[in-house]
Amino acid sequence: MPDRFVVGVDLGGTKILALVVDKQFAVVGRAKKSTKAQEGVAHVHDRIVAAVIEACRGAGLDPKALAGVGVGSPGPLDPATGVIIDSPNLGWHNYPLREKLQQALGVPVAVDNDANLGTLSEQRLGAARGKQHVVGIFAGTGIGGGLVLNGQLFYGASGAAGEIGHIVMNPDGPLCGCGNRGCLEAIASRSAIAGEAAVAAVRGHAPHLLAACGGDVTKVRSGDLAEAIQAGDQAIETIVRRAARYIGIAIGSLVNLLSPDCVVLGGGMVEAMEDIFLAEAREALKHHAMPYLAQRVEIMPARLGDDAVALGAALLIAEKR
Amino acid sequence: MPDRFVVGVDLGGTKILALVVDKQFAVVGRAKKSTKAQEGVAHVHDRIVAAVIEACRGAGLDPKALAGVGVGSPGPLDPATGVIIDSPNLGWHNYPLREKLQQALGVPVAVDNDANLGTLSEQRLGAARGKQHVVGIFAGTGIGGGLVLNGQLFYGASGAAGEIGHIVMNPDGPLCGCGNRGCLEAIASRSAIAGEAAVAAVRGHAPHLLAACGGDVTKVRSGDLAEAIQAGDQAIETIVRRAARYIGIAIGSLVNLLSPDCVVLGGGMVEAMEDIFLAEAREALKHHAMPYLAQRVEIMPARLGDDAVALGAALLIAEKR
Repeated sequence: MPDRFVVGVDLGGTKILALVVDKQFAVVGRAKKSTKAQEGVAHVHDRIVAAVIEACRGAGLDPKALAGVGVGSPGPLDPATGVIIDSPNLGWHNYPLREKLQQALGVPVAVDNDANLGTLSEQRLGAARGKQHVVGIFAGTGIGGGLVLNGQLFYGASGAAGEIGHIVMNPDGPLCGCGNRGCLEAIASRSAIAGEAAVAAVRGHAPHLLAACGGDVTKVRSGDLAEAIQAGDQAIETIVRRAARYIGIAIGSLVNLLSPDCVVLGGGMVEAMEDIFLAEAREALKHHAMPYLAQRVEIMPARLGDDAVALGAALLIAEKR
Repeated sequence: MPDRFVVGVDLGGTKILALVVDKQFAVVGRAKKSTKAQEGVAHVHDRIVAAVIEACRGAGLDPKALAGVGVGSPGPLDPATGVIIDSPNLGWHNYPLREKLQQALGVPVAVDNDANLGTLSEQRLGAARGKQHVVGIFAGTGIGGGLVLNGQLFYGASGAAGEIGHIVMNPDGPLCGCGNRGCLEAIASRSAIAGEAAVAAVRGHAPHLLAACGGDVTKVRSGDLAEAIQAGDQAIETIVRRAARYIGIAIGSLVNLLSPDCVVLGGGMVEAMEDIFLAEAREALKHHAMPYLAQRVEIMPARLGDDAVALGAALLIAEKR
């Protein structure tokens, strides 16, 4: 742990969250800004810097006195250099985020994949505390993943290991955003669910969902899905349960492959519909993991919510020292 | 590396291979015996001991002077204790192989999963020499797998990670030996191919295969499949190519998940039909791995052949010292 304070930043497609944490990882300052990615990379950079400064001010700190700033960003990115290779959500290509922020802030900066950092914080501070081998799965617009193996984030040869959303569930399945077919993300993300829900809505089977999302199912939020299911849209429940079951099948493969002691399930959809996601995933696991490996693993809901990525980003700096 | 000689044993369902290796991992003695698992666990134990002694004698060594004996066995097993949890091929349940062999031989013994050891030896001495993150896939009667991550065998929480044959390729697919459905092994192992080949034979589409295997397709060997394809059984080629393609799809998932720098493909089927397996796997990888991760990985044929597991077993002892 550092002697000095650390800032962790969650750089998302829609919002930037900056947290100041102390030695015990208590949050002593926070700031939130909208990303406004459409205004271009220079503007987003300035908004990250502004969020860091504002969070420090809230904690009564001079940003120059920070031990460093960690940033969680959508990938793929190179954690060794802090270059964002390609981020469809931000519209960035080969952007040297770490270098630029280091120049602007005058303190050490580290950058890593957002889902990696969510997994790291859940393993260090959250649902999987004390577990050695942890798989993190975060289901929202896409499906992000991270691997903590032997107590450390696992990066692989490219630095970008952990793409759990791109495990192949069906070689001839639906087209995925990555260009391939049948990835978990193409079957079980909120985007995939929105596509199925739109068809149900056209058939008149999702009246409550239409009401909840204001008529445009392509913009459905996780809370809208939860609301529609509560209100009685059975087609939506069927669609969501299938997605959750596929996540459970993927967990089966992950258990057979990696024998983790904990799988942490998080993300917007899981937060909004935790019961459904946990129950379906645990049931599917029974049918797709080998018993000898399945008996060593728990599926746990994530605990750190919206702070998970920023806390993981702070850990990145704290543990480098 | 140990000062003294080491013996590595490959304990298979049909044969036991013992190799004596020197400091440079040159093989200086070898012995081979049939397993005769049906005669019971005590007999197999005695045959392992006899193979070790015979291999030592061939090298002019006293077995008591060995640095130790490593054993690769079918799993699941606990590498920490050397207990074979359950081996359908050997008919063993909770058998303390390490303890029993240590008593009989009077030197340190280590036990690990055969596919783990095949992967380890390919990474240390074979096709994946010098690579940090290596996935080993061995296609024969079943499909075995091993993971070397950050230069070390990866075991996970149970000690039994690396069950690549039980990645779920199709949740409603054929029943697997493990009791679940749609595992890679249920689709792409020689046993699965034999099932499909039997149907083709009944239809009169596999005359050369029937000739090669003496009329009983359930006992087909990898060499018989290669021979039938050479001789013109197109149905058999179609069946084998599909199995190889599924292995490639599974490699796609593995690349997205672990970003290895090398995938080693080995086992009886790959040795007998290397061109088909390499070509189909490489082609499938193009359609199922994310480009940023795919560009860092090579699929390589295994190089150590029948000695791979025994050499890995010797490494287990050599590296413990």
